Amino acid sequence: MPVDTQRLAQQVMSRCDELAGCSSESGRITRLYLSEPMHAVHTRVTEWMRLAGLSPRIDHAGNCIGRLTSPTAEKALLIGSHLDTVPGAGRYDGVLGVLMSVAACHLLSGTSLPFHLDVVGFSEEEGVRFKMPYLGSSAVSGAFDPTWLDRTDANCICMRDAIKAFGLSPDAIADCKYAADEVIGFVEPHLEQGPVLERLDSPVGVVTGIAGQSRLRIVFRGEAGHAGTSPMEGRRDALVASAKLVRIVRDEAIRSSGLKATVGSLQVAPGTPNVIPGCVELTLDVRHLDDPTRETAVERLIAAGHRAADAEGCRMEVLEHNVHHSIQADDRLASLLSETVSEHATEPVLMESGAGHDAVVMGERFPMAMLFLRHPGGVSHHPDERVNVEDVVVGIEVLAEYLKKLSGHYQQVSLNTS
Amino acid sequence: MPVDTQRLAQQVMSRCDELAGCSSESGRITRLYLSEPMHAVHTRVTEWMRLAGLSPRIDHAGNCIGRLTSPTAEKALLIGSHLDTVPGAGRYDGVLGVLMSVAACHLLSGTSLPFHLDVVGFSEEEGVRFKMPYLGSSAVSGAFDPTWLDRTDANCICMRDAIKAFGLSPDAIADCKYAADEVIGFVEPHLEQGPVLERLDSPVGVVTGIAGQSRLRIVFRGEAGHAGTSPMEGRRDALVASAKLVRIVRDEAIRSSGLKATVGSLQVAPGTPNVIPGCVELTLDVRHLDDPTRETAVERLIAAGHRAADAEGCRMEVLEHNVHHSIQADDRLASLLSETVSEHATEPVLMESGAGHDAVVMGERFPMAMLFLRHPGGVSHHPDERVNVEDVVVGIEVLAEYLKKLSGHYQQVSLNTS
Repeated sequence: MPVDTQRLAQQVMSRCDELAGCSSESGRITRLYLSEPMHAVHTRVTEWMRLAGLSPRIDHAGNCIGRLTSPTAEKALLIGSHLDTVPGAGRYDGVLGVLMSVAACHLLSGTSLPFHLDVVGFSEEEGVRFKMPYLGSSAVSGAFDPTWLDRTDANCICMRDAIKAFGLSPDAIADCKYAADEVIGFVEPHLEQGPVLERLDSPVGVVTGIAGQSRLRIVFRGEAGHAGTSPMEGRRDALVASAKLVRIVRDEAIRSSGLKATVGSLQVAPGTPNVIPGCVELTLDVRHLDDPTRETAVERLIAAGHRAADAEGCRMEVLEHNVHHSIQADDRLASLLSETVSEHATEPVLMESGAGHDAVVMGERFPMAMLFLRHPGGVSHHPDERVNVEDVVVGIEVLAEYLKKLSGHYQQVSLNTS
Repeated sequence: MPVDTQRLAQQVMSRCDELAGCSSESGRITRLYLSEPMHAVHTRVTEWMRLAGLSPRIDHAGNCIGRLTSPTAEKALLIGSHLDTVPGAGRYDGVLGVLMSVAACHLLSGTSLPFHLDVVGFSEEEGVRFKMPYLGSSAVSGAFDPTWLDRTDANCICMRDAIKAFGLSPDAIADCKYAADEVIGFVEPHLEQGPVLERLDSPVGVVTGIAGQSRLRIVFRGEAGHAGTSPMEGRRDALVASAKLVRIVRDEAIRSSGLKATVGSLQVAPGTPNVIPGCVELTLDVRHLDDPTRETAVERLIAAGHRAADAEGCRMEVLEHNVHHSIQADDRLASLLSETVSEHATEPVLMESGAGHDAVVMGERFPMAMLFLRHPGGVSHHPDERVNVEDVVVGIEVLAEYLKKLSGHYQQVSLNTS
């Protein structure tokens, strides 16, 4: 098996390279929800799924799902991650978890499982195109709200039309849903996107929980005017007001242990060199493992934003406020994963995730576990994203052994309850 | 004459409304250099010039110039302003000065002048499309640098190709130049774009000088990273660094009397809600009537930007640094204009301009004067820009009488020197 896994890991690496070429931008990896290059990704991933013995399909939310059918099973175990990227992304975030799952199926070849195994490549996790994350996993978990179909992207294309243009049916999104009683759980292998495993010199980690997250869209409204004739006194400069909040966000997060707060997007209107900014729209991303700590921080930042706006004669408004509560891994799934890591790799590192994942949405409805892979350099959402092929070997082996362990465990449970 | 001028002023107002409809954006006035709607503007303005007895032409920089030919003259007096706008502009900035000049020609009808009178509608003053102002007047004054033709707009179209696409010849730009010895001077009527005349309850003002201006393009380079997993300590957030400079720019301008400093444009890359900003590009606009005061302020702001970048582990770089020195109106032209205002309207308000104008570039080579019109509300570069039709009446009368006075003065000078 070690030789096979080596080859499979190399194959995963070269497949990640191949998918990196499926991009909307030359020289950069940019693959938003239902964008043109996603067709090429689906062609490749479904082909690789077939080679691993899976029966692939694309659901109406654009998820790519390959099933290893169990003749006797009623329930399914889902495993995988996402296939979309941020603009200018690295090649492993999301994609690696999908392709490692496919590789694990190769290793299982011939093994009979007591559940259907569905390898999932979710269509959308990053939330870039429609400024809302987890669209693919929300469709699968049943959390997809049909009103989201009216959201528009930067080109004023609504989600409903984007789904149709991709060749899918927005009215059939409800059919993507798995009923809670037909799912054993969801397992997501993913790059750590942080420095913990590298610091502890461990190839893999087992996630115990995922930080809660608040995502806000905020606007500052002031008054545009001529930069050369408007006296400095009496200006209502929306950028000067919002710049204050940008600094406060960082300072607040530095002060509060474990809090992460980021203004990632900021747009100025009219955005002309000789015109005072009349309007600024920005996003605020706040995360913490403890929900009340996060909620208190968000309240304080909103209040600080209003004060910053008032001080400049501007008005601040929260246009959108989305929340994902922190979520715990399923005790049983996580402890079996820890056992597997312990038996086949190394002493398991138990850790929390600061990043959001499809496992957040899936974990709200199904038992969830996550396997993290060491992330050399820790740079994510960036072309410099890297992964060690030796760690991919460990990851694939752990996943295959974990599926066998779950298989044994599930057969035993079935036996006991039948 | 009063009845005629009333009708002409009403006509100027309705012509401003008509040109406001020549826009690249529905519901907003946006007319950048050599953009499609400028063709419609040229069609209308050249027709109105013909009706006023002028012979119009479009030069190879896209300027619209109508000549009232004097059979015996060797020199020309230029009068006018610009026809381009900022995005989301008002309807009077630039356009009003051109159309008031055309109206003054109507009033002069039958008057024989000892100089050619060239009414100019400059093609580009705002500097939006190629992030460089005064392109039209630079071509006329001879300050146009052919290397500018390689500059590209937001759609990566270079100026050379934009000129060709508009039906003009970039290689013939040098032909737009007026030799210094063939120009008597340049007179620019323009909306004040400020509150002075309104506060003093005066319809018009005579400009004594124009503030110098520094325009910088600055980049902050940090490091992109995942907003959920990158610890707050050790981040290199380019937006946090640049936000500090935005605040310092304002504070510095508040502290230094007469200084105006504005960050009007700021762009974040990658600009995604869950990614730490890796790069920010912004513009800095600094103005003062005293050049050394402005230069010292710019030096301090650059130093402060470097410190703000260093404090965040970022690097700041000045990508571009354009300067226009402050410029004085020509004593003779300005005092004759003051006399005209005094004789035909009101006690003249002598004032300085904080805004840049084509008169800056023209004034570096030719004698220059400017007539300001009261600006109710003082809101410029904005749809709320307004003007009183009664003030337009005064403006047109003053311009016509001024041209007669210059005519007499110039005949006398010619007599004395011949």
